[in-house]
Amino acid sequence: MQKKRILLGHGSGGKLSHDLIDGLFARYFDNDLLRQQSDSAVFKLGAENVAFTTDSFVVDPLFFPGGNIGKLAVAGTVNDLAVSGAIPKYLSAGFIIEEGFPLDDLEQIVKTMAEEAANAGVLIVTGDTKVVDKGKCDKLFINTSGVGELTSDRLAIGSGNKIEVGDKLIINGGIGEHGMAIMSARNDLKISTSVQSDCACLNGLISDVFSVSTSIKFMRDATRGGLGTIVSELVKNKDFGIQVDEEKLVQDEGVRGMCELLGFDPLYVANEGKVLMVVGGHDAQKVLEKMQKHPLGKKAAIIGEITQTNPGMAWLKTVIGGKRIIEMLSGQQLPRIC
Amino acid sequence: MQKKRILLGHGSGGKLSHDLIDGLFARYFDNDLLRQQSDSAVFKLGAENVAFTTDSFVVDPLFFPGGNIGKLAVAGTVNDLAVSGAIPKYLSAGFIIEEGFPLDDLEQIVKTMAEEAANAGVLIVTGDTKVVDKGKCDKLFINTSGVGELTSDRLAIGSGNKIEVGDKLIINGGIGEHGMAIMSARNDLKISTSVQSDCACLNGLISDVFSVSTSIKFMRDATRGGLGTIVSELVKNKDFGIQVDEEKLVQDEGVRGMCELLGFDPLYVANEGKVLMVVGGHDAQKVLEKMQKHPLGKKAAIIGEITQTNPGMAWLKTVIGGKRIIEMLSGQQLPRIC
Repeated sequence: MQKKRILLGHGSGGKLSHDLIDGLFARYFDNDLLRQQSDSAVFKLGAENVAFTTDSFVVDPLFFPGGNIGKLAVAGTVNDLAVSGAIPKYLSAGFIIEEGFPLDDLEQIVKTMAEEAANAGVLIVTGDTKVVDKGKCDKLFINTSGVGELTSDRLAIGSGNKIEVGDKLIINGGIGEHGMAIMSARNDLKISTSVQSDCACLNGLISDVFSVSTSIKFMRDATRGGLGTIVSELVKNKDFGIQVDEEKLVQDEGVRGMCELLGFDPLYVANEGKVLMVVGGHDAQKVLEKMQKHPLGKKAAIIGEITQTNPGMAWLKTVIGGKRIIEMLSGQQLPRIC
Repeated sequence: MQKKRILLGHGSGGKLSHDLIDGLFARYFDNDLLRQQSDSAVFKLGAENVAFTTDSFVVDPLFFPGGNIGKLAVAGTVNDLAVSGAIPKYLSAGFIIEEGFPLDDLEQIVKTMAEEAANAGVLIVTGDTKVVDKGKCDKLFINTSGVGELTSDRLAIGSGNKIEVGDKLIINGGIGEHGMAIMSARNDLKISTSVQSDCACLNGLISDVFSVSTSIKFMRDATRGGLGTIVSELVKNKDFGIQVDEEKLVQDEGVRGMCELLGFDPLYVANEGKVLMVVGGHDAQKVLEKMQKHPLGKKAAIIGEITQTNPGMAWLKTVIGGKRIIEMLSGQQLPRIC
């Protein structure tokens, strides 16, 4: 019998990733906190509610329009904390570097990390460096882990348990920008020059929104697997459905063009500066307006709602009036985008 | 002019590692917590003292006598927390996996991590998986980060600021076992069959010692760079010296043989289950006896002391009565041992 092996799709954030997590990691590491499978684990230390998260970054290439692996590594972990409702505070940084990697490039990446951390108001407080022989890793991988503080009113944000029929889905701008920026950097396509990664720390925008609304029911950053993966995860085994209105989805012209040309479905293309919020219907307009005042939310839009119909299903109401089920991504659409 | 590039020595834990940390990471990420350069960053969240640390593991081979990369990844981070005086509580686990890696091997490693975490009383609560194309990493890298709790009486343990002349150096057993176990696994040397890695979680042993003594002044686990690197770091810019008594250093026969044969200095060979403690002179015997009662401290020994003479220097009193300065490791003795 042939040995079962790891496929690229196991790192896609889609169905194979879930199979690996459920079948292996969750099975052996089993505990209540891990079982939440949210962006951050949330636990008590003494009287404090603490959020804790980790992410490894293997993006290829290291430098891309709109950022580099360092910016991604800080923003990714800051965002995982922020969408769990926490105030991000402290980060770690672990570097795995290929022998022969240019020190100038490393310096530029470290400088970007420092700037991004300062902008987000977090401190990088502990680190680790490993060097492997030439050919044993691809230039540079970075792990960032992060710790944040939660107030008790935000405890259930990550779980989605507060979601109710009639809640609205709001996203802070266009989809697919990060994935297509990586694609353009990788292939040097001429059409792609205008597309920039949306990579950014969202804790400021999220904090603004909390200042005007007490009915934020759920947040998640739409990274690997894109918006499509979040909504399909969110309805799994739930007694509500999700309708996403295609007409309301913002798409940069360059992203749209690249997706059409290359055959990508933008719903599944990665973002690195987009948060999907589920907000009580009565507060949706207020949240939208607050978001639109933030530099990272100018193109924010209400893109859909929580429905009583079709429980356990997410579907796209297409521009031409049809309906398409949004399934979990199977296989790997675009490897190493983060 | 030729570009400056990363060398294997930058990951050795010795002089080049320090140069990279001081000249790059500490310079850009600069903050009070990072400046402590201890095994864990220690900060307050609300009223709680929290320790936070990270480590990436790139050991080659993945399986070795006495353990595997998973055991190492859990023990390494548990120990970094424990030597800072913290009670290790929660770990993250980030996997970077090469496409094609056998699922059976991954399962064995994950199983070991779960067992080791259970033994140490910590929970793995959050994780991340990335898969890179075949040839873009060497089988499997694991990052673990960890969070622990500190009582206020243990706050200054990591800094070494409490150390005084007359304090004793105690280690919980023989040196060089992990490094030589890796070496034997790598080269399939026949002489090496008896050498096992000492890889183990030390939080239980450390907790035992704290139960009998209030004069533990400093602890560090002697990993990359070995015992020699710790003592040479510890005296840097200090007004005391350190004498290590070669006669008191325990060495497994197999380790001694391999070091002689292969030309390694055991002082700089990695351990993964050894903690060096600096303990007030009056408590040293009590601490030693307590350690010796623990399964991981049977061969514990008082191996040296803090001296008024030769401030800023660490030296080895050799078996034949000579003196040798213990300098920081320059270059790379043995890559990818952790």
